[in-house]
Amino acid sequence: MAVRRNAGKGQVLADTLFKNARMADGRAIDLLVAGGRITAIEPVGRLPVLEGTSVVELAGALLVPPFVEGHIHLDTSFIGDSWRPHKPCTDGFDVRERVAFQEENLATAAPMDYRAARQVDLCLAAGTLRMRSHVHVDAGPGLSHLEKILPVRETYRDLIDIQLVAFPQNGILSSPGSVEILDEAIAMGCDVIGGLDPATLDRDIEGQLDVVFDIAERRGVGVDIHLHDPHMLGVFQIEQICDRTRALGMQGRVAVSHAYGLGEVSEAAAKKAADLIAASGVAIMTNAPGNHPFPPVALLRAAGVTVFSGSDNIRDSWWPYGDGDMLNRANMIGYRSGFYTDPDLEAAFDVVTAAGAAALGISGDYGIAIGKPADFVCLAAEHVPEAVVGVPRQRTVYRRGRTIAENFVLASPANRG
Amino acid sequence: MAVRRNAGKGQVLADTLFKNARMADGRAIDLLVAGGRITAIEPVGRLPVLEGTSVVELAGALLVPPFVEGHIHLDTSFIGDSWRPHKPCTDGFDVRERVAFQEENLATAAPMDYRAARQVDLCLAAGTLRMRSHVHVDAGPGLSHLEKILPVRETYRDLIDIQLVAFPQNGILSSPGSVEILDEAIAMGCDVIGGLDPATLDRDIEGQLDVVFDIAERRGVGVDIHLHDPHMLGVFQIEQICDRTRALGMQGRVAVSHAYGLGEVSEAAAKKAADLIAASGVAIMTNAPGNHPFPPVALLRAAGVTVFSGSDNIRDSWWPYGDGDMLNRANMIGYRSGFYTDPDLEAAFDVVTAAGAAALGISGDYGIAIGKPADFVCLAAEHVPEAVVGVPRQRTVYRRGRTIAENFVLASPANRG
Repeated sequence: MAVRRNAGKGQVLADTLFKNARMADGRAIDLLVAGGRITAIEPVGRLPVLEGTSVVELAGALLVPPFVEGHIHLDTSFIGDSWRPHKPCTDGFDVRERVAFQEENLATAAPMDYRAARQVDLCLAAGTLRMRSHVHVDAGPGLSHLEKILPVRETYRDLIDIQLVAFPQNGILSSPGSVEILDEAIAMGCDVIGGLDPATLDRDIEGQLDVVFDIAERRGVGVDIHLHDPHMLGVFQIEQICDRTRALGMQGRVAVSHAYGLGEVSEAAAKKAADLIAASGVAIMTNAPGNHPFPPVALLRAAGVTVFSGSDNIRDSWWPYGDGDMLNRANMIGYRSGFYTDPDLEAAFDVVTAAGAAALGISGDYGIAIGKPADFVCLAAEHVPEAVVGVPRQRTVYRRGRTIAENFVLASPANRG
Repeated sequence: MAVRRNAGKGQVLADTLFKNARMADGRAIDLLVAGGRITAIEPVGRLPVLEGTSVVELAGALLVPPFVEGHIHLDTSFIGDSWRPHKPCTDGFDVRERVAFQEENLATAAPMDYRAARQVDLCLAAGTLRMRSHVHVDAGPGLSHLEKILPVRETYRDLIDIQLVAFPQNGILSSPGSVEILDEAIAMGCDVIGGLDPATLDRDIEGQLDVVFDIAERRGVGVDIHLHDPHMLGVFQIEQICDRTRALGMQGRVAVSHAYGLGEVSEAAAKKAADLIAASGVAIMTNAPGNHPFPPVALLRAAGVTVFSGSDNIRDSWWPYGDGDMLNRANMIGYRSGFYTDPDLEAAFDVVTAAGAAALGISGDYGIAIGKPADFVCLAAEHVPEAVVGVPRQRTVYRRGRTIAENFVLASPANRG
């Protein structure tokens, strides 16, 4: 897609001029990168090619910020491992039965760090350069998963920014000993404290939220709570989370993942909740599940809520789906939400890009603007709406101005041009 | 993916030995093609390489029958044309308003045969070699669309088998003069007579079905009726269609497309309808829409109903979605249906392959077996469940034993190896 040539004497850290890109707003631009950051964006032909500058011809490709994978589980996928057929629960969905099945699977799986790396590769190759991964941390596995995932984050630090969430898959109060382990996980390097269905799993909404927000306050970290609890039971807990967020002044640092209840209640109830969520600066994550109600994306966004997205599980003990492509996820969000107009398709794209960065609290170093890291994706698409419906297979991923993947194939370190 | 080499003196119509393929049932096989048909399937290494035989090394690729696109609209897509932003209806969905918008769009679009050809190219490149396309035929456009699409079918006859449905987009009774035009469309070469929402569009269920089944009986063609009518109003019409199908002995030659009602009624009502549909040999088409209830695929299949699928509209005046990849459609069917186990994923695959061929009445010349046309797709996947969740980008499409597309790029006629 792109042809790089040196205009003068090449240097490893030479400036690079990216020519003939199209921005999401339609502008045809050239873009200059120096020291891994964007240093100029000008109409095509205005930027001089100085001695020593590499030139990359983008031939009109759509240049967009990298995708934000806002919810993934790096410790549990079988990407890179052998196929594990899905086993349904014996009598309807049951979290504890699924966790037991997962532990059985993981006991015989390829090493966790190897599988996690293959999953990061999958995401990188598709254009994701910002990620939030939940890691199972509680009295079950203790800190063993985190001990495997932390080095993976280090290995990939030059390629992708990864936030880790200490995720109590077995619950907190119902998994005695987990409080201290979760706290230790933050000390070890987790960026966010997680939670899971305080009502149905711990049977104690106040109790679980006390622990989560206490750790968040003491450690100065954000919150991201899995919440599958249904209907008004889910909405009630979202309200509780909003109240605590405002009480602690944590607006912009708290997220609720899944939040199924918002998609199950009446539109009026969802609207009322949306106003509270927006006023509390709480973000909502949805992966647009296939056969389950999910939060009304347009309604939430109209109320001012930051809606972000993620692959969630990719080919693991919970389901076999997922390809790590957040542009395909934007397509799914649009398809599931009935988004047909250009503004709606742009909204679906925003969910996997800028809104994702906002939810993760990383907007400062994100976007296509002077001074930002030169992280971007070039797509064979005319504009964002076409990219969302077409999910182009032709794409090139740039990190700090260097090619790291082309058409879903990662460049070897030596070939990161 | 595949490397072809001549074992002896090459001839244009030389036999071809496809080596090291994996069948859907897991067998590792070699497959011999002569005169465009499959002449032998044997365990790897058992077939001798005779003088003059070309050899194609498949390196363990999954070899499956070509995809069946069971419901598409070749006349209305803007694939190959400029982007046309979606315009929502002014006050909720209205068929006649959408048709008016479509006519406005088509008036300024690229030539219909050109756009149709680009849509066929899109489908071919993904591995579809059997297709049923609806073509708008009624008192509105008259036979003008059909006159453009018939030559496209001829142009592509060596590459893909296309059935055409005379589709009364404006209704039949409510579009005076349409009866004779539909009848003439069959005389001109349509294979199937269509219909559309007898209740809500024509306000006369018996009246529209009288016309449709009268033409079907007189002309000896099958029936495929678009039915979006909701809830029990839809189910009632399906029952009427079933009754007529049995009365005329047309089992196996009638389909209902969309059949939304089946996804909107209680499970008990759907089950009762499914038994009647199965007993009547009526097939049900669903594209697994994103934000609308759709027929319960597993329930219907369990009752013995042939469920098939199609892209439906691809980037046209009705919605902007669609990529022409029926393997991606199988993924969507599975995702939307909550299919997680291997047998369920295999069912989703069956919907876009063998069940599609059955619905179109073309099973005789379909499948991977001795004597069948050498039409197949090779996928970079271990097995069918993995293909459905992974939707491999690496794939090669063979028609009569010759490569016609690789990784979504069509081979030029000179390069059809």
